[in-house]
Amino acid sequence: MKTVGVAILGLGVVGGGTYKILTEHREFYRRTQNVDISVECVLELNRQRALDLGVEESRICSNIAEVVSNPSVDIVVEVIGGVEPARTFVLAALHSGKTVVTSNKELFCKHWFELEKAAKRTNAGLYFEASCVGGVPIIRTLVDGMQANVVNNLTGIINGTTNYILTRMTKEGLDYRDALKDAQALGYAEKDPTADVEGYDATYKLSILASLAFHTKVPLDKIYREGITEISKQDIAYGEELGYVLKLLAIGKNDGQGEIEVRVHPAFIRKDHPLASVNDSFNAVFLKGDCVGDIMLYGRGAGALPTGSAIVSDVIYAATHSDSKYATFKNTQQAEKGVRFVSDFKSRYYIRFTAKDRPGVLAKVAGIFAKYNISIIDLIQKGEGMENIPIILITHETGELSVHRALEKIAALDDVVEVNSVIRVGD
Amino acid sequence: MKTVGVAILGLGVVGGGTYKILTEHREFYRRTQNVDISVECVLELNRQRALDLGVEESRICSNIAEVVSNPSVDIVVEVIGGVEPARTFVLAALHSGKTVVTSNKELFCKHWFELEKAAKRTNAGLYFEASCVGGVPIIRTLVDGMQANVVNNLTGIINGTTNYILTRMTKEGLDYRDALKDAQALGYAEKDPTADVEGYDATYKLSILASLAFHTKVPLDKIYREGITEISKQDIAYGEELGYVLKLLAIGKNDGQGEIEVRVHPAFIRKDHPLASVNDSFNAVFLKGDCVGDIMLYGRGAGALPTGSAIVSDVIYAATHSDSKYATFKNTQQAEKGVRFVSDFKSRYYIRFTAKDRPGVLAKVAGIFAKYNISIIDLIQKGEGMENIPIILITHETGELSVHRALEKIAALDDVVEVNSVIRVGD
Repeated sequence: MKTVGVAILGLGVVGGGTYKILTEHREFYRRTQNVDISVECVLELNRQRALDLGVEESRICSNIAEVVSNPSVDIVVEVIGGVEPARTFVLAALHSGKTVVTSNKELFCKHWFELEKAAKRTNAGLYFEASCVGGVPIIRTLVDGMQANVVNNLTGIINGTTNYILTRMTKEGLDYRDALKDAQALGYAEKDPTADVEGYDATYKLSILASLAFHTKVPLDKIYREGITEISKQDIAYGEELGYVLKLLAIGKNDGQGEIEVRVHPAFIRKDHPLASVNDSFNAVFLKGDCVGDIMLYGRGAGALPTGSAIVSDVIYAATHSDSKYATFKNTQQAEKGVRFVSDFKSRYYIRFTAKDRPGVLAKVAGIFAKYNISIIDLIQKGEGMENIPIILITHETGELSVHRALEKIAALDDVVEVNSVIRVGD
Repeated sequence: MKTVGVAILGLGVVGGGTYKILTEHREFYRRTQNVDISVECVLELNRQRALDLGVEESRICSNIAEVVSNPSVDIVVEVIGGVEPARTFVLAALHSGKTVVTSNKELFCKHWFELEKAAKRTNAGLYFEASCVGGVPIIRTLVDGMQANVVNNLTGIINGTTNYILTRMTKEGLDYRDALKDAQALGYAEKDPTADVEGYDATYKLSILASLAFHTKVPLDKIYREGITEISKQDIAYGEELGYVLKLLAIGKNDGQGEIEVRVHPAFIRKDHPLASVNDSFNAVFLKGDCVGDIMLYGRGAGALPTGSAIVSDVIYAATHSDSKYATFKNTQQAEKGVRFVSDFKSRYYIRFTAKDRPGVLAKVAGIFAKYNISIIDLIQKGEGMENIPIILITHETGELSVHRALEKIAALDDVVEVNSVIRVGD
């Protein structure tokens, strides 16, 4: 039986979950995977945290040099998060020929090629299934399950925090602020929630997933990003009336002619779309391949054990495969070759504005939309008899720039008090 | 760049789709997978069919000896279906050291160990992703994505034909016979539909999936099987009234103590269960792991291109991996060791019977259920004023045997005309 020694860098939520899974399942993996995996050491400055988890005193390291010089360590699991010191630690592990398994989406999407080159130099492995969508094996699916296909479309709910907040706002009519507070109290959101609610976390994951799906490096700065902090419960309620649910979507499109479109933003999707019923902290990814058609993977996108499951799956994969060490581009030259990224993408739009209740205001608004070739599918007008009334409409597919130009003109109308919201509507 | 020669045995629906994918994507695989895959020959007695697909005359073989003696062939794709002659052909290929990729669930589940032993003898590969749930990478997920988990539960809609028929019956109120006729006309059902509608096809797949999920061989004859031919549109409509949708489910449970339960039968599931909205010929599999929690994979379970996608995914995997040739038991001794299979499994039940409209009949029926410790959740009584009235009820979880004993007593009551239907209700 093969024996494998693991080091875990960081015993936070995911590190603790990984430690628990590896120690509690050791006999199970011996029996079912024919491999004996032992946790040889952990790097954790808070010694008490390590001791509380049951780590022997002698296996607690306080610097990376101890870890990389330990000959019993074959695989280094990095679950610190953030770029530094994670990057330095991962590079040190790779330089010393140790395989790295990481859940660090920010590090990976920003330093992918640097890490991969370092790994190849010493013939070390580099695995990152846990970086995207927690326990859902989306990386394995893209790399080892969908290779036969030209993937044209990837649409996902890939951030659990925002999906939890939006689900509470939708189901209970909560304000964004109140839903966020609850999410923080329950540990679904960080004290500083910026990375999640402003969509950064989703762009890290989309950068990785779209790169693999489209066989080309999709850099972070090419991804359009918009968070959920400006979403109001009114818009969610009006959307529901029109048959839509609001989600933070990560969208990647590949036209097959070298043009790629990548974006993260809130979007209304129809209630009968399979992604519409993905609620709370669950995640899901839809893929469209030219052979297989639509595929969806659904599961928990975060949490100690789901993310730990992905990490341990990589550890076992690394321990039992002698090749396929880089679940990444088979053809790096191709992957580094430039593609065009779409900036003026097309979408349908939900628009809400407040107007004075005077005759003729709708005619003027409709006239401006017509001038910009924007046609309207649905329109509701609320609050008859009030001085200022909300008007909600949904457009046919149109270019981003046209919408913004039209809305500038509309905002300047005497009868229009304010343009309140502009939210994209999914296909 | 690695070059790989493929032979395709059988150019039916799936074989034709595979040929099309491989030839049309050859340049794409060179670019993205760094492998050049050529179809070196096909085994097809209907030469015209092969010529119509664009196969060169010189590459059409009419016997397996020609294929296995061809030194340009590295991988043999078997898409003939059924046990013979597929088994003889596959063994011949493996004996000559050629890797086999098959979509043949019946052959694989009945001769798994024989094929695996033959493959290992010559160090040939053996892949079968396409045998289960078409283009959905469920085998890869079980073997390379869920290994960290003890899988406790696997529940799937894994037969497209029956799901198409049940969807039509549900949405349009069609009779089974009419829905079947349409399915046959549209190519979703065979002229002799037995394998699908009696649940055999689903048991083949469940045997493979449950074996991998539970790390132990689950033989066909341990799987309880019941088809959909006795399902009436009345029961579907009554179920809908109570909040349920009828599906043909394949269920595998593992209690972690060496006891396994495997069954294929129609079952009512609640409308808000994610499997309830899997319609038409789509398939989906739910997995519950002790670390990852619930995961669902959804996609097309059949068809030329979706199944071809899984086959070509295996061909690429075989061409680019030097180990992991057997996506199967890491520990064959363990897998062959016996486990206990549950026979008197527990479930909730939907029961419909016809009674004479006389006072006291419900009291007598309730008395019999009480005697067998079966409690009732829901009850509806229809057709007031008619001579014979339908009574529909749903029980709490109870043993299969108790239900059958109680129903024998109920059928024998003077006031009961007939017990019409007994259908399980999912968790």
